[in-house]
Amino acid sequence: MSSVYVAGVGMTKFGKSAETLLDLFSEAATLALARSPVEEIDAIYIGAMNPEEFTGESNIAAQVAEALGVSGVPATRVETASSAGAAALHAACHAVASGYYRSVLVVGGEKMTHLSTSAATRILAEVIERQERLCGATMPALAAMITERYRKRYRLSLSQLERVLCLVAMKNHLNGARNPCAQFQKPITKEMYLSSKLVSTPLRLYDCSPMTDGAAAVILTAEKTDLIVSGIGQGTGPTGLRERKSFTSFDATRVAAERAYRMAGISPKDIDFAEVHDAFTPFEIISSEDLGFFPAGKGWQAVEEGKTSIDGELPINPSGGLKSRGHPVGGSGVAQVVEVAERLRGNVKTKSRREPRRALAQSTGGLGANNLVTIIERVDGARAQISWSQATGRSRPLRRRPPIAAAPSEEGRIETFTILYVTPDGFLPPLALALVRDRAGQLVMAQGEDIGHLKIGRDVYLRQLDGSYVFTVKSHLRKVKEAMRRLVSGLPSLPRDTKKTPASREERP
Amino acid sequence: MSSVYVAGVGMTKFGKSAETLLDLFSEAATLALARSPVEEIDAIYIGAMNPEEFTGESNIAAQVAEALGVSGVPATRVETASSAGAAALHAACHAVASGYYRSVLVVGGEKMTHLSTSAATRILAEVIERQERLCGATMPALAAMITERYRKRYRLSLSQLERVLCLVAMKNHLNGARNPCAQFQKPITKEMYLSSKLVSTPLRLYDCSPMTDGAAAVILTAEKTDLIVSGIGQGTGPTGLRERKSFTSFDATRVAAERAYRMAGISPKDIDFAEVHDAFTPFEIISSEDLGFFPAGKGWQAVEEGKTSIDGELPINPSGGLKSRGHPVGGSGVAQVVEVAERLRGNVKTKSRREPRRALAQSTGGLGANNLVTIIERVDGARAQISWSQATGRSRPLRRRPPIAAAPSEEGRIETFTILYVTPDGFLPPLALALVRDRAGQLVMAQGEDIGHLKIGRDVYLRQLDGSYVFTVKSHLRKVKEAMRRLVSGLPSLPRDTKKTPASREERP
Repeated sequence: MSSVYVAGVGMTKFGKSAETLLDLFSEAATLALARSPVEEIDAIYIGAMNPEEFTGESNIAAQVAEALGVSGVPATRVETASSAGAAALHAACHAVASGYYRSVLVVGGEKMTHLSTSAATRILAEVIERQERLCGATMPALAAMITERYRKRYRLSLSQLERVLCLVAMKNHLNGARNPCAQFQKPITKEMYLSSKLVSTPLRLYDCSPMTDGAAAVILTAEKTDLIVSGIGQGTGPTGLRERKSFTSFDATRVAAERAYRMAGISPKDIDFAEVHDAFTPFEIISSEDLGFFPAGKGWQAVEEGKTSIDGELPINPSGGLKSRGHPVGGSGVAQVVEVAERLRGNVKTKSRREPRRALAQSTGGLGANNLVTIIERVDGARAQISWSQATGRSRPLRRRPPIAAAPSEEGRIETFTILYVTPDGFLPPLALALVRDRAGQLVMAQGEDIGHLKIGRDVYLRQLDGSYVFTVKSHLRKVKEAMRRLVSGLPSLPRDTKKTPASREERP
Repeated sequence: MSSVYVAGVGMTKFGKSAETLLDLFSEAATLALARSPVEEIDAIYIGAMNPEEFTGESNIAAQVAEALGVSGVPATRVETASSAGAAALHAACHAVASGYYRSVLVVGGEKMTHLSTSAATRILAEVIERQERLCGATMPALAAMITERYRKRYRLSLSQLERVLCLVAMKNHLNGARNPCAQFQKPITKEMYLSSKLVSTPLRLYDCSPMTDGAAAVILTAEKTDLIVSGIGQGTGPTGLRERKSFTSFDATRVAAERAYRMAGISPKDIDFAEVHDAFTPFEIISSEDLGFFPAGKGWQAVEEGKTSIDGELPINPSGGLKSRGHPVGGSGVAQVVEVAERLRGNVKTKSRREPRRALAQSTGGLGANNLVTIIERVDGARAQISWSQATGRSRPLRRRPPIAAAPSEEGRIETFTILYVTPDGFLPPLALALVRDRAGQLVMAQGEDIGHLKIGRDVYLRQLDGSYVFTVKSHLRKVKEAMRRLVSGLPSLPRDTKKTPASREERP
């Protein structure tokens, strides 16, 4: 088995580009190669999420080889939704580690900004589980529901949450302002954050990563360089929110991180800085817990204490992250490794207390459904050879998924919710969405009759409508009925209903 | 480095299925696992060409893990157009050979028949280079143009070609009739072949593989079994016909085969039987030459002599091939390996003269643009350990493709042509298409003014029309002009123009 080293890296400017996807790939690859001791490559691995629908491009791997002038060279496209770049990098690592190829080019990217936001959102929303998508759920809506659950579980007030998310957004925009490749290069203020529009409560525009064109490239090689890939790990999780064991943590990240740490023979405290998939600001916090940097429920405090700032004890997203660098979906996983390599090499100055020797990149596919972790170290750390055979974790035997009961019972309780202000085509804003647990314990995504009276733990009526589900808050329905009765009978007003709703079932810790 | 062995294999019935794509994947995976000494798998590799557009499914890798009841297990989708299944298998080989995973599941498949032929053809046609696609070129049209060129180059008469293609179709349908998983299970007669409709001259319906639903699965493991993956190789080629050095051979297959043979330490004559990507009957012949089974230009004779029949000296597609087994695009590369394993294990009786010990599977992505070769051997052949590090072939340094001249000159010569009878939406049949080489040596795809007078080597006028190109055969234009002159002047008919057109430039041998 060979060790896998990082040679040249390069990336395009992220943002809105007039170049084609193939041109973006070529530009990033050419930059990486120009800065590499390796001059010839044996194969190409391409990370792209959905060029078929974003740009009408199929057979992209052969096209990239052709555009790079090396038609003939093996080229393979790898896809795991928005973590496709990281998955391409891992496939390339296996190919080099096996000895089959000596040096390979990994290039990831996407072209998105030429489409309208609604068209691009529709394509991105295809990763969402079907029943949830049919209710009008978008990625920001699902992220928002996870955020609301996190807030409830760890007892943050709405204003505490708002402050913390604002801090993440400000930190990442400040970092991005120093990154010449970042899409957004201006710091944002608290006032800008607070006046930005609500996308899906409690998430604002500044909590969401943008649509981006861009590509990034990394050369991996068996020839010793200054940086080694010391740990990789991947994990999957359910695509639907309904199927999760926890709503405040991503199992896929935990599995991926555990494997990567085991392979590298290190623990989270050995990491000097990290690039984390902050497609939404709360996901940076949740991932910082899943990666073991902070205990569950303490990630938000770490942000408040400045621990994840560029001069903190564990800088997270010193590059600006997806939030400010931009998020060309299939490219982000490779871009993270480019940023990590540049900082470990000292090409980009960090303000951290210690000179960084070891960094981690974490990439998320879909709603935390296919996540990857990559650990890169400086070779002068004088570590023993990395063993590729220590990472295997055996899985359970396969068993086909049992069918889900056809229709839920007619009553249930809100597990989490959001009000969506930027809705997909065919849905009028504001749209209330809730994950409802019925009496049989089954979860369904449902649309709210109206946007008032939403709270985790509240009892609701549930009914089917056009293949989707609609919920009505019980206490609200009672009030409506009472108001109607009053209208009809002309009786004086009754005192306000103050009966408390029972607390919702919390996740296992 | 570990050797990579084949454990259990399985596949669904191919054809029109009421099952979902995920159910097809699950069925194939469950069959493979039930017949495997390996009970637990560490990762899943999925080959699928375009589930996003065929079934609206994104994030398919995480969905497959979930459907198999092993959410958590790493799952990666690999795509190289219609060879996606083989590419997934190769990525899985690298992962096992590196030692990172011990046992992995490879599953490939596609769901296509629920779409109309025109909708499915449109999706498949996205692999075609843009300029060629804009002229109305489809995969059968491009295959037909390659076939016409092969006929011209190796001096086959039209009736000779027809006989040979008919023999390939009859052979593969006869083989498929014995395969319980095949889509078509009836032999076809010469009369059926000759009365089947012309899709694109000279190709008939029976020359083209069908639209298919189906999936196939292979378990690969580092634990010794009876079958070893002894050689793998991949190569790419230009996506457009215009960019090819040769129109009668696929460079991508040659590169892939050379690597696979080198890794296995064998030559083409050591192969006992092969599964070859016969998306079109002529491609089986061309690939049998590219794989080194027969010299260039002799593949058609081997068919005539029965060498590739199931009882011949080198049976090709004893399973029925894509032609009769069916072609769920992302699944065919895995299905080939399932068929190979079943025959090498003696689970399917062959009629070959010698007991088969070594077999080859060849898969084609797009128009021969991303091709893969896999060699599987029986372990009792008592060979030395396979070395993964002997396969590397260094490539040329990258250089970005020079831009193609904007507009071709106004005259040129037909390099090859076809008349397309089954046209894409927006194009009326019959549609004449020709690859025209202009005076500057540049190739363009162009539509014919009419369908008469087409011949390789004929001189044409070329003009741009709505971003596409239109050609008119010169001799034909002259005749039209003469006829018009006669009409106007009332002169008697002139003798017929018999001036010969000069021969077309032939490919390098």
